[in-house]
Amino acid sequence: MARKLLALVSAVPVVVALNNGLALTPQMGWNTWNHFGCGINQDTIVNSAKALISNGLDKLGYEYVLVDDCWQADARDPDTGAPVEDKSKFPDGIKAVADQVHSLGLKFGIYSSAGTYTCGGKFGSLDYEEIDAKTYASWGVDYLKYDNCNNEGRAGTPQISYERYNNMSQALNATGRPILYSMCNWGEDGPWNFAVNIANSWRISGDIYDNFDRYDDRCPCTSMLDCKLAGFHCAMSRIIDFSAPLGQKAGKGHWNDLDMLEVGNGGMTYDEYVTHFSMWALAKSPLILGNDVTDMSDETKQIITNDAIIAVNKDTNGSPAIRVWKKPVSQGGDIQLWSITLVNYQWVFAVLNTSPVNQTVDISLLDVFIDQGSSFGSGTFTLSDLWQKDSSGNWGASVGNAQGTFTVSVNS
Amino acid sequence: MARKLLALVSAVPVVVALNNGLALTPQMGWNTWNHFGCGINQDTIVNSAKALISNGLDKLGYEYVLVDDCWQADARDPDTGAPVEDKSKFPDGIKAVADQVHSLGLKFGIYSSAGTYTCGGKFGSLDYEEIDAKTYASWGVDYLKYDNCNNEGRAGTPQISYERYNNMSQALNATGRPILYSMCNWGEDGPWNFAVNIANSWRISGDIYDNFDRYDDRCPCTSMLDCKLAGFHCAMSRIIDFSAPLGQKAGKGHWNDLDMLEVGNGGMTYDEYVTHFSMWALAKSPLILGNDVTDMSDETKQIITNDAIIAVNKDTNGSPAIRVWKKPVSQGGDIQLWSITLVNYQWVFAVLNTSPVNQTVDISLLDVFIDQGSSFGSGTFTLSDLWQKDSSGNWGASVGNAQGTFTVSVNS
Amino acid sequence: MARKLLALVSAVPVVVALNNGLALTPQMGWNTWNHFGCGINQDTIVNSAKALISNGLDKLGYEYVLVDDCWQADARDPDTGAPVEDKSKFPDGIKAVADQVHSLGLKFGIYSSAGTYTCGGKFGSLDYEEIDAKTYASWGVDYLKYDNCNNEGRAGTPQISYERYNNMSQALNATGRPILYSMCNWGEDGPWNFAVNIANSWRISGDIYDNFDRYDDRCPCTSMLDCKLAGFHCAMSRIIDFSAPLGQKAGKGHWNDLDMLEVGNGGMTYDEYVTHFSMWALAKSPLILGNDVTDMSDETKQIITNDAIIAVNKDTNGSPAIRVWKKPVSQGGDIQLWSITLVNYQWVFAVLNTSPVNQTVDISLLDVFIDQGSSFGSGTFTLSDLWQKDSSGNWGASVGNAQGTFTVSVNS
Amino acid sequence: MARKLLALVSAVPVVVALNNGLALTPQMGWNTWNHFGCGINQDTIVNSAKALISNGLDKLGYEYVLVDDCWQADARDPDTGAPVEDKSKFPDGIKAVADQVHSLGLKFGIYSSAGTYTCGGKFGSLDYEEIDAKTYASWGVDYLKYDNCNNEGRAGTPQISYERYNNMSQALNATGRPILYSMCNWGEDGPWNFAVNIANSWRISGDIYDNFDRYDDRCPCTSMLDCKLAGFHCAMSRIIDFSAPLGQKAGKGHWNDLDMLEVGNGGMTYDEYVTHFSMWALAKSPLILGNDVTDMSDETKQIITNDAIIAVNKDTNGSPAIRVWKKPVSQGGDIQLWSITLVNYQWVFAVLNTSPVNQTVDISLLDVFIDQGSSFGSGTFTLSDLWQKDSSGNWGASVGNAQGTFTVSVNS
Repeated sequence: MARKLLALVSAVPVVVALNNGLALTPQMGWNTWNHFGCGINQDTIVNSAKALISNGLDKLGYEYVLVDDCWQADARDPDTGAPVEDKSKFPDGIKAVADQVHSLGLKFGIYSSAGTYTCGGKFGSLDYEEIDAKTYASWGVDYLKYDNCNNEGRAGTPQISYERYNNMSQALNATGRPILYSMCNWGEDGPWNFAVNIANSWRISGDIYDNFDRYDDRCPCTSMLDCKLAGFHCAMSRIIDFSAPLGQKAGKGHWNDLDMLEVGNGGMTYDEYVTHFSMWALAKSPLILGNDVTDMSDETKQIITNDAIIAVNKDTNGSPAIRVWKKPVSQGGDIQLWSITLVNYQWVFAVLNTSPVNQTVDISLLDVFIDQGSSFGSGTFTLSDLWQKDSSGNWGASVGNAQGTFTVSVNS
Repeated sequence: MARKLLALVSAVPVVVALNNGLALTPQMGWNTWNHFGCGINQDTIVNSAKALISNGLDKLGYEYVLVDDCWQADARDPDTGAPVEDKSKFPDGIKAVADQVHSLGLKFGIYSSAGTYTCGGKFGSLDYEEIDAKTYASWGVDYLKYDNCNNEGRAGTPQISYERYNNMSQALNATGRPILYSMCNWGEDGPWNFAVNIANSWRISGDIYDNFDRYDDRCPCTSMLDCKLAGFHCAMSRIIDFSAPLGQKAGKGHWNDLDMLEVGNGGMTYDEYVTHFSMWALAKSPLILGNDVTDMSDETKQIITNDAIIAVNKDTNGSPAIRVWKKPVSQGGDIQLWSITLVNYQWVFAVLNTSPVNQTVDISLLDVFIDQGSSFGSGTFTLSDLWQKDSSGNWGASVGNAQGTFTVSVNS
Repeated sequence: MARKLLALVSAVPVVVALNNGLALTPQMGWNTWNHFGCGINQDTIVNSAKALISNGLDKLGYEYVLVDDCWQADARDPDTGAPVEDKSKFPDGIKAVADQVHSLGLKFGIYSSAGTYTCGGKFGSLDYEEIDAKTYASWGVDYLKYDNCNNEGRAGTPQISYERYNNMSQALNATGRPILYSMCNWGEDGPWNFAVNIANSWRISGDIYDNFDRYDDRCPCTSMLDCKLAGFHCAMSRIIDFSAPLGQKAGKGHWNDLDMLEVGNGGMTYDEYVTHFSMWALAKSPLILGNDVTDMSDETKQIITNDAIIAVNKDTNGSPAIRVWKKPVSQGGDIQLWSITLVNYQWVFAVLNTSPVNQTVDISLLDVFIDQGSSFGSGTFTLSDLWQKDSSGNWGASVGNAQGTFTVSVNS
Repeated sequence: MARKLLALVSAVPVVVALNNGLALTPQMGWNTWNHFGCGINQDTIVNSAKALISNGLDKLGYEYVLVDDCWQADARDPDTGAPVEDKSKFPDGIKAVADQVHSLGLKFGIYSSAGTYTCGGKFGSLDYEEIDAKTYASWGVDYLKYDNCNNEGRAGTPQISYERYNNMSQALNATGRPILYSMCNWGEDGPWNFAVNIANSWRISGDIYDNFDRYDDRCPCTSMLDCKLAGFHCAMSRIIDFSAPLGQKAGKGHWNDLDMLEVGNGGMTYDEYVTHFSMWALAKSPLILGNDVTDMSDETKQIITNDAIIAVNKDTNGSPAIRVWKKPVSQGGDIQLWSITLVNYQWVFAVLNTSPVNQTVDISLLDVFIDQGSSFGSGTFTLSDLWQKDSSGNWGASVGNAQGTFTVSVNS
């Protein structure tokens, strides 16, 4: 387990979003699923939205409040075919909840599946794209997470998957309302290849679970490049591994989604959650909180409010971090070096340790500057640790200069 | 070879099927193929049906009497195109046999292939789905096993395979008669992904053969996730291995089919058959007997009538067992831990030994409770062995308490 | 290199072809390509046909005289679109050559490609199937080898490949003339799955070259199950390896084609050619001579006229040999055991040595009788060596009895 | 790193192009991308064209001057839909630049993508093939590099990719102007299989970067035969490895493109660039310079003007070099032997060392003559080193005779 994350200059990067359109930097927010699953109602949503405000999370960028699966009634409106909410959970209706979220200055999102049913067994949107998009827009929806369960075999080539997901993309665009489109087809048929112009983000793997590196057969593939069963129960560090070749495909408005965060849900240590949050930020993944934001420990709050790390995620350079190398360790696991170039002459690198023991490792500037070349590699740089605070209480305390090859210690 | 199977509470789980529809728990019954192959006639069927009753197997859930391949005449009815039975084997007709089976309180099933010919070279149902389904319904058929031979290249993507198998699914539904639909496309193109809403079960691999772990090239793939030649002659423990990542895709009304049972056919030892029966039950595979039920040894009968094991298969929780880990053994083969959560606060785990020597292995409750977490892992549980009888002669004798890490011995 | 091949009974099996249709046993004959390439003319064909007769090869079953690529003119008939022969090579026309071959009591075959051009750059038959088939039939053609070059991307799923090859199959059938259809798509998209009802044989790999086991990158796949570049220059023992899982898919009228024989072309030793000929026979591959039959050494002639080996190939049981095991050898390469069941209570097994040193290996009857089971494995059998002659000069001299486990020596 | 390249006869091969059509030998020229990226304008093009002349590069065959991405305006002509150039970079228009290039006796090429956008985000040609091809022809374009970015999921089988790329091929042909068609789909779906009759060359991998053998995750596949993410940042020696099985698919008018040259861009040593240039020539890759030809070092100029190496590339035999063997080295990396047959009784072989240490290796003539056989392997041959000059200053100094097995030293 790794937790050293160092910025090579002391100033926290300035974050500027320049273009029109959505998700110019990866979306941030909160989603019901990881903590509440199907056990949601309108109070869950509104209370969590209020907690985002009261904890100051909105000011850091967490702006989307997302209702995941199980908001639906048992069936569509029998007359119009329109989607209907479960009135026992949402007695005032989804629109009223969206209005409340909007009145708090936040944005509101919803969930469906590009299948006959959702993963939770509710009605899906396959072949109902137009009426569903229109209804969502009429409710004031700003964001759609669009899942892959029950797709009735409409997969197997990029072309087949593109057509299914583009149907909803076109339907959302046709509403005239800007709705962030978050594809969740678990990397099937390579959305990083086919979906760059139809979605704002796409999941790259099966669902995360709240664990650093435990493997079981429910997440069976060793790479997502041609995985035929993405599964679920994918440990956090496996998803980092899956993401390594895919960073090249992400950019402004179209991101690799490493899945919602587990920070604060209890399955990992503090150091492990620091790694989790840091690597999601460097991979330019959407940062969607998955814990109960109405009831957080100080540690959890500290991690998700590290504005130096969030700034890396929001940096306008757009390109995710590159994995420079991954070296196996004799005790099992590996050490990895990741590096990312920010605007404003700043770079961030991370050393990741997935072995069961502490590691001390030599890092070469020539490696950190893999895309800048030898002239950078021979320079001198100010080194800051984004997980230490300086005397003013700001994240990113200076820890000296870096030159040539320097040594980093990483806990197990 | 493994044979330790332990339940963590003493009471045998209560089995309740709640919903409408078929196969709410995996179907159980008897099929002609593994023992009789093409050497069948109407007496084979009726005598076996009677033997199910006389041996009390019906009361345990074995309710389907299934005629596999070779019941067909050489050709369809030249005028109507309807399927016709081989009159030399079925002089009274299939309908009369079905009537007799029904009169015994059992259900009746039949076989065809989604191809131009069946695997045995008889006429297949490809492009004859409607007339075949209607005819089956008119005969009183309750179950169709639908094979994959001679599919004329209609495969290669989930979409292509879905269309071919959905044609029969729709045709069966259109008859108005509830007919359990048992797909047998050997895992091609991933039926666990594409067939969840069109079939009650799907085979995941090539045909089983009556052997614990012998490998030959006729079952060439090492995983079913993208296997291009499922083949046949797949040893029992290989099919267990194939099933490990697929359990997540099964549930009420749609099951992974690990193929028909070989218990009692003579190619494995008692311990090996115990493993076979146990793992099929934990994987929530249909339990379709494949031996000669008119002539069974006491050992065979004992295995297939273990109602504690059958209760695991019939538990309404629905989710198959999870393989928690698989550890290679220096002598070859491996040790595996499987765990399944039942309703009513009960769990079953199995330790599987595919190495050539006896193994003693430490089992951690934290592993058994992979989905319940650390609070369960630190508890104390009553441990029962589902293959030992208690003083009342019931399967599942208590063998003490389990706490933390405990030791299990598993025969080779 | 291996060369021990033993039959377990002394009598040479009787060969009977029972059904109508073609290739009830694998076709036998001679083809121009391996020795002459494009350097052919009508004399090459007629002289070779005569040599088949004068050497008595016709009586052993070598009945097809096959013209491979390069018989075509530069272009089709500009008016009719019909295929035209190269008049400089075939001044009397293909029909005249076919007539001569027929007058010798032999059958005549020709070549084309399911592409815009043949592999040799001549016009192909893609989208000209009907006129080509009709023309071949009018010439008296009995056999078509149908290649895969220049297929213009019509590949990638079994369905796409099926359609392309079925077009010619239907066209040949429509002529009313029985024409053996020999597909040569190098195993692409799995013809053993999709082509069983449309072709009499299908090539399983890239082209053979006249070498026992030398590897280079032109034959890059290690298995044909999902090979995306079959290539060519595949050493003989690699093709044997490729064939191991595919035997299960072959049978009467539809065979795996391991490519034409290289026996007599000079790139292998006597022992290696014995292995080549033996394994092709056991794999139920077509036996198509590829040497210059007008100029053969005694050794070459001896190999290709071993009627005990040919009888294995022609045995009416139909199923190819099974590879029972393949064991790596520390010096590199492996030892393999293959076994085949004949009609008339006879079995043949082969021990193949691809390692660089001589090997002595224990063979268990339980392995030889993998499909007969333990009762056979404990019996006593008469053992004959199909490459030794008895006192009457017949192949298959008795070499004693076999029981339990016995020892076989195999040269490198 | 390797740099020994030896020709087996002393005379530099005569190069003759015989047929009509384009790219009878692999195209040669210069392209803007590797050095200038998007930072181009009309002066960049014209000055570089002049530099080709002043350095005598045109006389060696470098005839195409190629404008890569970023020549386009922000949008097509709103009225006609025709492509429009960026007037700030090309104030006189593309046609004027093409005219200037033609007036220098050189040929002119341009770039687009078979997608909705180019890789640089400009308008692409997908579904605009006809008007784009017509416009290019009207501008006097002689060459089109056609990329794969933003293909909107139109990929996944050879058939799908063929259709997309054939659309432009047909459009170019329909203009009546001979335009060399250089496909750049990064090897997706196997253009070496599907594109032989629709393109003059096809890229086989993700983009090269200026480095001998450094690996990172942006070039994730280990083979191109079924790579689902070609990526970019592929080190030079990895592309050589990718090309090994593909040489068999190239020939006159249809070549494997190993990507543009990096010689002179600074990321490799002299010896490494010698290897780069040599292996590109032997692989019959197009030789497209990627450095700044207006500002070259003597070393760079020496490498790209080695006419003995260029003659290998231009040899009319057409077939790329074959990798005879690749042997791992204990220190990491490997030694490889490549061999190519030229016309006029000449052969060239190369020994490639990718290990970190110097290597001394025995080379057997039997290996060099893999396709000529044992009679050649036992002969005596004059040996010349194509990277040494003779007393007249010509590349290819004689270095003695070769017989049987001889020893070669290769630097690290």
